[in-house]
Amino acid sequence: MLGQAFHQLTIRTKGRGLYEFTNEVAEWISERGFANGLLTLHVQHTSASLLIQENADPDVRRDLEAFFARLAPDGDRLFIHTAEGDDDMPAHVRTALTAVNLSIPVQDGRLALGTWQGVYLWEHRCSSHSRHVAMHWIGEGKGRT
Amino acid sequence: MLGQAFHQLTIRTKGRGLYEFTNEVAEWISERGFANGLLTLHVQHTSASLLIQENADPDVRRDLEAFFARLAPDGDRLFIHTAEGDDDMPAHVRTALTAVNLSIPVQDGRLALGTWQGVYLWEHRCSSHSRHVAMHWIGEGKGRT
Amino acid sequence: MLGQAFHQLTIRTKGRGLYEFTNEVAEWISERGFANGLLTLHVQHTSASLLIQENADPDVRRDLEAFFARLAPDGDRLFIHTAEGDDDMPAHVRTALTAVNLSIPVQDGRLALGTWQGVYLWEHRCSSHSRHVAMHWIGEGKGRT
Repeated sequence: MLGQAFHQLTIRTKGRGLYEFTNEVAEWISERGFANGLLTLHVQHTSASLLIQENADPDVRRDLEAFFARLAPDGDRLFIHTAEGDDDMPAHVRTALTAVNLSIPVQDGRLALGTWQGVYLWEHRCSSHSRHVAMHWIGEGKGRT
Repeated sequence: MLGQAFHQLTIRTKGRGLYEFTNEVAEWISERGFANGLLTLHVQHTSASLLIQENADPDVRRDLEAFFARLAPDGDRLFIHTAEGDDDMPAHVRTALTAVNLSIPVQDGRLALGTWQGVYLWEHRCSSHSRHVAMHWIGEGKGRT
Repeated sequence: MLGQAFHQLTIRTKGRGLYEFTNEVAEWISERGFANGLLTLHVQHTSASLLIQENADPDVRRDLEAFFARLAPDGDRLFIHTAEGDDDMPAHVRTALTAVNLSIPVQDGRLALGTWQGVYLWEHRCSSHSRHVAMHWIGEGKGRT
C-alpha cells in the first residue's frame, strides 16, 4: 500500500561551505518507518543548493569550494546585481551550476547512496543563514519488522 | 488514494534567455485539483534546460546569462561540432551544466518553492524555438474543498 | 493500481567518456511491462555522473569532454586532494557540475525523452570502473495489451 509524507528540515549555516545532513534525512525515514520508496529533497532558496558528494576526506570539500570560488569569484565585475553583496551573484551562479532538488530511491529503509556519498546543503553566501529543505516521501512504510 | 497524470507544455522562445513558466505549472495543478504529491518536469531538448532561480530582480537573470556567455562563449575554437551554428555547442554545454529535469513537492495545491524561486526554461540557442516540457504528477487530488 | 520496483544496473567503463545506456533502461521498462509512471536513476558514485544529451553526432560528446577537460583540468595545482591521482579531484568537480540523479516520466511504456536525447553515464576517471546505477519505478504496469 503506497502512501506519502512531507517534512521540512531547517539547516542553520555559518557562512559558505558544505553542511552534511545525510543523518537528518535517514532519521526521518527511520522514525516514520518508511521502507521502500522515493525520497525527494528540494531546497527553497536561490543562493544555496544541494549536493551529493564524497563524505570521507574533508579535503574534497575544501577543493570543491576552491574550484567554485575560482570559477565564480566574489566581486566579479561582470555582475550588475551587486546590491546584496559581493557574494550574492556568485551564490546564484553556484546554485545554477549545482542542484536544487534530488530524488533518491530508498530500499529496506536505507537511502540508495553509494559507500562514499553524503547529502549536503551547500551554503554559497558568506554570512549565516537558516535554510529550508522540503522533503517528500512516496512509497511503502513499515516494511521492516 | 494516489493517482497520476501527464501533460505536455509548449514554450515558445525568442532567442537565448530565461523564460519563466511557474504560472503555467501552477495552473495545471490548480485546474486538475491536485493537492498533495510530487511534480516532475522534464525538458525534451539538448540545447535548452530547466532552472529554478530568483524571480525578483531581473538583473539576476541578466548576470546569469552574462556568466554563462563568458564560461561557454559562442564560436569557441575548442569545438568541432559547429555545423549547426556558433551557438549550438555552447548550448549543449550550458544544458549539461544546468538541469533537464526537476522534481518539486506540492502541498495543499501549492508548489513547495521558496519565496524567491521561479521555474524557468532556459533557451540557450539564439534563434526562436518551440520547446516541450513533459510534466508528471503523482499524488492525491481534490484535497482542497 | 500503482506499484513500484527497484533494479540495479552495472555499467563497466574503460576510462573517461560518455557511455549511453538508454537501451538498458528501456529494456527494464519493457521486460517488466511498466506502462505509465516515473523512472528515477541514481548513480552511486562521486566521480561519475548522469547526463541526458544528444545521441546523434558523436562530435557533441567529444566537445563536451573537451570543454570539461579545459574547465577542470587534470593535475590542477589548486587542489590538495591529490592522493588518488591527478584526475580524481577534477572527477569530483565534474560530478558536482552535472547530475547524480534524474527522474524521467514514462508514458505508454516509453521514456518521455526528446528525439535527440540519450541517457549517459559520464565516467570522469581515466581508468576502468564498474559503476552502479540504482533505478526506481513508480506507476502502473501492464498497460499495453
